[in-house]
Amino acid sequence: MENFYFYAPTYFAFGKDMESEAGRLVKRFGGSRVLIHYGGGSVVRSGLLDRVKASLDKEGIGYVTLGGVKPNPRSGLVYEGIDLCRKEGVDFVLAVGGGSVIDSSKAIAAGTIYDGDFWDFYEGKPVEKALPIGTVLTIAAAGSEGSPDSVITKEEGNLKRGASGEAYRPRFSILNPALTQTLPPHQTAAGITDIIAHLYERYLTNSTEVEVTDRLIEALIMTMKYEGPRVIEDPNNYEARANIMWGGMVAHNNICGVGRSQDWSSHAIEHELSAEYDCAHGAGLAVTMPAVFKYTMHHDVKRFATIARRVWDVTQADDEKAALAGIEALSSFLSSLGMPKNFAELGANEADIEKMAERACYGDGNGSGYIYGFTKLSKEDVVNIYKMMV
Amino acid sequence: MENFYFYAPTYFAFGKDMESEAGRLVKRFGGSRVLIHYGGGSVVRSGLLDRVKASLDKEGIGYVTLGGVKPNPRSGLVYEGIDLCRKEGVDFVLAVGGGSVIDSSKAIAAGTIYDGDFWDFYEGKPVEKALPIGTVLTIAAAGSEGSPDSVITKEEGNLKRGASGEAYRPRFSILNPALTQTLPPHQTAAGITDIIAHLYERYLTNSTEVEVTDRLIEALIMTMKYEGPRVIEDPNNYEARANIMWGGMVAHNNICGVGRSQDWSSHAIEHELSAEYDCAHGAGLAVTMPAVFKYTMHHDVKRFATIARRVWDVTQADDEKAALAGIEALSSFLSSLGMPKNFAELGANEADIEKMAERACYGDGNGSGYIYGFTKLSKEDVVNIYKMMV
Repeated sequence: MENFYFYAPTYFAFGKDMESEAGRLVKRFGGSRVLIHYGGGSVVRSGLLDRVKASLDKEGIGYVTLGGVKPNPRSGLVYEGIDLCRKEGVDFVLAVGGGSVIDSSKAIAAGTIYDGDFWDFYEGKPVEKALPIGTVLTIAAAGSEGSPDSVITKEEGNLKRGASGEAYRPRFSILNPALTQTLPPHQTAAGITDIIAHLYERYLTNSTEVEVTDRLIEALIMTMKYEGPRVIEDPNNYEARANIMWGGMVAHNNICGVGRSQDWSSHAIEHELSAEYDCAHGAGLAVTMPAVFKYTMHHDVKRFATIARRVWDVTQADDEKAALAGIEALSSFLSSLGMPKNFAELGANEADIEKMAERACYGDGNGSGYIYGFTKLSKEDVVNIYKMMV
Repeated sequence: MENFYFYAPTYFAFGKDMESEAGRLVKRFGGSRVLIHYGGGSVVRSGLLDRVKASLDKEGIGYVTLGGVKPNPRSGLVYEGIDLCRKEGVDFVLAVGGGSVIDSSKAIAAGTIYDGDFWDFYEGKPVEKALPIGTVLTIAAAGSEGSPDSVITKEEGNLKRGASGEAYRPRFSILNPALTQTLPPHQTAAGITDIIAHLYERYLTNSTEVEVTDRLIEALIMTMKYEGPRVIEDPNNYEARANIMWGGMVAHNNICGVGRSQDWSSHAIEHELSAEYDCAHGAGLAVTMPAVFKYTMHHDVKRFATIARRVWDVTQADDEKAALAGIEALSSFLSSLGMPKNFAELGANEADIEKMAERACYGDGNGSGYIYGFTKLSKEDVVNIYKMMV
């Protein structure tokens, strides 16, 4: 195990009706004038936005609102949010939505009190300061409610990039599983896939002797394996929703990823898909992961064989066969939830492979030419991997 | 799953040589004049105390010291610490040691800024304020480095009682597994047993549909099952020490215990043993747990059968047989680490059973007469359980 720091000071309020505590929590964490940031019409139609507003009203906390966040959130709305926060003297950003809304909120929170262009943080500048952030989560997926991460897409050049920093950890997050019951099956499944991807990206490590985090990761994948089909069968299954929601947070706040190198190749390769086709990140990952894993499994067959046996009920004694069977089992599982298996089902186009591989490895010209993680992938490797998905 | 709040804002610095960061972290979390609280001579002899002092010196932070904490820490030294902190204007308490030192530090931290008797907190008054606390951990066991809990023994009446509150969560904890390499095998094994007990106490629940926390708990017990024998065989196995140390923290900061009722009967019943005989808490738990589990297993045989199959490699199809085999496997495992199996090996006396059961159920007269948890245990039940340990 490698040396590490771990600091996850987010206050979680979990369960039914917890959104009524938004006002109390904003006050507790020092907010007096809030930007409520949200996405489309569903939080309006469901009455959630009104309930959050009522909770702020009750505490006498003022607010302005900014809706319109789309999946794979864009820089344009971030700039708009920054202007609004500055104009209105906002001192707290409250995200009401899923990972995209939270990531957009984080970017606004950092950009508002930064003299330069917020995009600097998404080109590698560490996020050291940001307005305090709170979240009311509406989908179990990204884990942004407990993580120090944010991913934003820049319209020019379709660049999808991440930023990270302690200041991006939400001060509080409200997790009410009932709010996720109205999600369409495709979004629910994409969320579960994203959670599983966060776990595999941590599992694929070059660090040795990491039994405790291995076991924790396996525990969370087994949870998704059990609860995923239950929630697809019955979207109103509150209990399955609850287990997935807490599991999704634990999967990505990094308590199960400390002290070990991590992968994140699948995310890097997928990001080009959702940037290009605006597909759900989870759907892109369902197509990407099996290809990446098959391409890289010989780097450490034993590791793939272990997760196959511990999680996917694979019994083959031969490590290579077991490893492959585990990847196939993951692929079949994601497919059984309704996730796509290939470019055609995802709506991706073979003709774009060269361009996407170029962008994945070189970014807008300042990339290294490689994706570093579990293995080192060149542009040629990435082209090969995309071709496996066709 | 039940509604819950979870807030664990402890900053962890984990790994080799991390004690050199004590000064930086005290400063970061606002300390300017520190009480360094510790136990016996080992932290002096090993040079750890000097290294911590040097780290504070480097940051220009003043300190006073108070050693002498014993296992099952006593109220007498807490009063002494409170007087010292007040006299010296201490604003930060730094525990250098194991669970006993940390628990004593927490009591001092609360008592210093409280007008009444600190023991009030150990008779049920919520801990709302305390001086900030930091820890440099020297044994993986109690989990106090990441928990809001503290257990103190009052000399008059040998009362061992717990207190809890958000203010008791350490601001930072330094976990260097190498510091635990010099522990004698008995203490190492007692620590592992304590960690396993923290996991079983959470596993035994009356809440339903708690797959995610079930799986996380099982993951941590499997980690102890794998790493325990390795560290007993080779006390210098840094990697095994590291996995146990992080696992011990995760086991008790409650991320795997949220949203479910918990048990804590074994702890309540054991506390009387360590209060009476001053045995290691873990050693007492090794004797207590199998008896409690056999006595209560019919309350939910399925739950015991599940952990037996998932963790202890039990294959019996019959739930009752599987449940019993799982408890036997736990018992054999603890015994294989060198833990006692019965009163004789623990140094306990059958003649004290009546007195201990009385105190476990009625305290110093203000108890309810029952231990509430996974089941409701009367004094007669507790007598029966103690008799099973003989």
